Amino acid sequence: MKLTHVIESQQFTVPSLMELFDRAQLMEKIAARGGTRDYENKIMATLFYKSSTRTRFSFEAAMYRLGGKVLATEHANEFSSEIDGGQLEDTIRIIANCSDVIVLRHTDEGAAKRASLVSTVPVINAGEGAGGQHPTQALLDLYTIYRECKALNGLSVALMGELDNGRTARSLAYLLSKFDRVKLYFIAPSEIQIKPDILAYLDSHRVQYELAESPEHILSHVDVVYRTHIDRERLQRRDIDLTPYNINAGVLSTMKSNAIIMHPLPRSVEIDPAVDNDPRAVYFRQSRNGLFVRMALLTILFDQG
Amino acid sequence: MKLTHVIESQQFTVPSLMELFDRAQLMEKIAARGGTRDYENKIMATLFYKSSTRTRFSFEAAMYRLGGKVLATEHANEFSSEIDGGQLEDTIRIIANCSDVIVLRHTDEGAAKRASLVSTVPVINAGEGAGGQHPTQALLDLYTIYRECKALNGLSVALMGELDNGRTARSLAYLLSKFDRVKLYFIAPSEIQIKPDILAYLDSHRVQYELAESPEHILSHVDVVYRTHIDRERLQRRDIDLTPYNINAGVLSTMKSNAIIMHPLPRSVEIDPAVDNDPRAVYFRQSRNGLFVRMALLTILFDQG
Amino acid sequence: MKLTHVIESQQFTVPSLMELFDRAQLMEKIAARGGTRDYENKIMATLFYKSSTRTRFSFEAAMYRLGGKVLATEHANEFSSEIDGGQLEDTIRIIANCSDVIVLRHTDEGAAKRASLVSTVPVINAGEGAGGQHPTQALLDLYTIYRECKALNGLSVALMGELDNGRTARSLAYLLSKFDRVKLYFIAPSEIQIKPDILAYLDSHRVQYELAESPEHILSHVDVVYRTHIDRERLQRRDIDLTPYNINAGVLSTMKSNAIIMHPLPRSVEIDPAVDNDPRAVYFRQSRNGLFVRMALLTILFDQG
Repeated sequence: MKLTHVIESQQFTVPSLMELFDRAQLMEKIAARGGTRDYENKIMATLFYKSSTRTRFSFEAAMYRLGGKVLATEHANEFSSEIDGGQLEDTIRIIANCSDVIVLRHTDEGAAKRASLVSTVPVINAGEGAGGQHPTQALLDLYTIYRECKALNGLSVALMGELDNGRTARSLAYLLSKFDRVKLYFIAPSEIQIKPDILAYLDSHRVQYELAESPEHILSHVDVVYRTHIDRERLQRRDIDLTPYNINAGVLSTMKSNAIIMHPLPRSVEIDPAVDNDPRAVYFRQSRNGLFVRMALLTILFDQG
Repeated sequence: MKLTHVIESQQFTVPSLMELFDRAQLMEKIAARGGTRDYENKIMATLFYKSSTRTRFSFEAAMYRLGGKVLATEHANEFSSEIDGGQLEDTIRIIANCSDVIVLRHTDEGAAKRASLVSTVPVINAGEGAGGQHPTQALLDLYTIYRECKALNGLSVALMGELDNGRTARSLAYLLSKFDRVKLYFIAPSEIQIKPDILAYLDSHRVQYELAESPEHILSHVDVVYRTHIDRERLQRRDIDLTPYNINAGVLSTMKSNAIIMHPLPRSVEIDPAVDNDPRAVYFRQSRNGLFVRMALLTILFDQG
Repeated sequence: MKLTHVIESQQFTVPSLMELFDRAQLMEKIAARGGTRDYENKIMATLFYKSSTRTRFSFEAAMYRLGGKVLATEHANEFSSEIDGGQLEDTIRIIANCSDVIVLRHTDEGAAKRASLVSTVPVINAGEGAGGQHPTQALLDLYTIYRECKALNGLSVALMGELDNGRTARSLAYLLSKFDRVKLYFIAPSEIQIKPDILAYLDSHRVQYELAESPEHILSHVDVVYRTHIDRERLQRRDIDLTPYNINAGVLSTMKSNAIIMHPLPRSVEIDPAVDNDPRAVYFRQSRNGLFVRMALLTILFDQG
């Protein structure tokens, strides 16, 4: 696969996804034996304009398991002189001068693309804006489904919770639409249902989907239940109660024995801790898969560098 | 010694303390020759919900001298989604997925214990709450006494300053009570004397102690004078003047020739800089001992991992 | 060269500058092949009381290319207990206990000097106060002129923009005055012209200079045009318009074919992006030179340590 930057999940073709996932499985083995020293000359800059310790740590741990070094900032917005338009570009040029890959989290949609146009080193989008892309999260989600279900074609996937706002559901819908005979269920109160642009995209790619207000009659036959993050403040402001969408032992008992439950973590009330020990609860492994997918992406970028 | 987590100073027995201190002396030698590469595959996450650069740097330097890598955050409280109870647990699970040891500083007492219950890697408490435990500080204090006085049994130790509030005096009292024929002096204005729970603990362990408002007649015959941090704002608010408890050349002249003066640093007016060059002023070496004790703890945790 | 601390640009003699620049050129070659592992036992502490991600990353990347490790803080001012005078000294002593070099950025002029007086490891001033020194920036600026113009004697250098406030123009003037037959042009509106102390310094060192309000008739014959940062807020407050001092294709066409354009980056409107691809635009290489000069300084400090 030819990979120069990682900007959005749509850029990956099915063959490139399969190559990435093969590589991620190799990385799983390398990480299990403590990592490698092969990339010890490489420096990764994590340039976060908005703090996100979990995502940053996952990238940085991936780099460390490869033997590399890390320049880190959680507060790139404090670049005191970066106040005018066009300065992101100069900042990227400066940081490209002292690193081999830039991991960028930005508050503006389109920032990673802009960065990639001037950077002399690869740029990886680590999330941007509120509704923008977060491609490595989408890739680790898809990798988790692939690892747990042993397939990506022919799957029924329920996305459940706050679907209008989060990046997770949107990005995953894009990626899943690349596979055959996938059926998507969007389960949410109508006020926070998935936005029409995604449905139009699915229509144009002839992907089957269904919208539902209630999880009833759906969770019993899907292969994957993906419960999204909740934004409590926002829900309270809009007076929306997502309790019927929470997953507990009762819900679990209605699910297929080989279905899986996913969540981007950390959760609050969306999933009862009593569910954690069920083999279908894969969200802790899902978080760990982020490490392997990010190691895989980094090595692919470095190997062709 | 079997060590899975480092949560509170009481968890250490006398034999385990001696084993730790032997290990710390070995680490002193290893650090003197620039460190080792033996733990280069290990990743330490320093997860600080409250910034404390000195403690964090000491842990991180310990890890570096062992050859390892560091994931660092000073602002874990900015984990934007960690707003609900129970989320510390998920955060710890996620970070355990990308590290080999977690060093946690938290604003809540009991946080390190909670973390240890769900973590798949060792957790080290790097200080919690205002009155909570800070076991590695207590261990480095005790190690300093051991290194400087060549003994821990039979010592007279004066703890002087703000004793009700700080963790230092409390933790050290717990640790010293494990040794034979120790005598403790708590020297402070009555409003900020050591709290009764510590005295009850000492009674139940049959440790000798004395309370005093004035350092007079005490400093001249003790082996150790431990001057605690002052919280100027708090003292001013309560209109308490700790000047009589400050250590200067005059005080020094009354002390035994082989006594030692300790302080957790940095000080403001508690110790006159004129005292710094006296051989009894051990506070700079005390700070350095933190490195060796933390290296020792990390290797003990890793070696049994 | 005997170098114990890097505090101000004046401390460097011409021979020591030449030795430093030879070393920097060697570092350029070492960085090009991915760096060295020669300094893997060394720990650098970047202690920033004021966040400056670009400067910090440049120092940290320099350390990584040498194989070393980095303790980093962007918010040293949050050292909660450092509220009283004299505590910088203790903080430096503590951090010297766990590092091999301290890179200090401070809000107070004179802080680096104070730190160097108590530190047991070398201290490098990474910028202090508003008008204070930032010697490594001055050194990388001078190195860039040396690399691009192949000489330092006999040069005509125009410093243009906000000259009263910034450290850049002041420090560079100090350094250039060490060389023979240098002529300096200070181009700025009179309200923000270079301050008299610099002119007095130049007089006493018999350096030729000229003040001008307009770049006209000057840019066409100088060897170096150094456009300084602008502080938009400050300029707006004082109702000063620097547009006539901006560099665009028109200005470029009047310049000598072998002149160079410098800027400390990032810029906003001072230099039109259309200028970026002209071979005379050296500001991106200038930023990269910071890496080599800092690698050179670090190795000189470590090699004599």
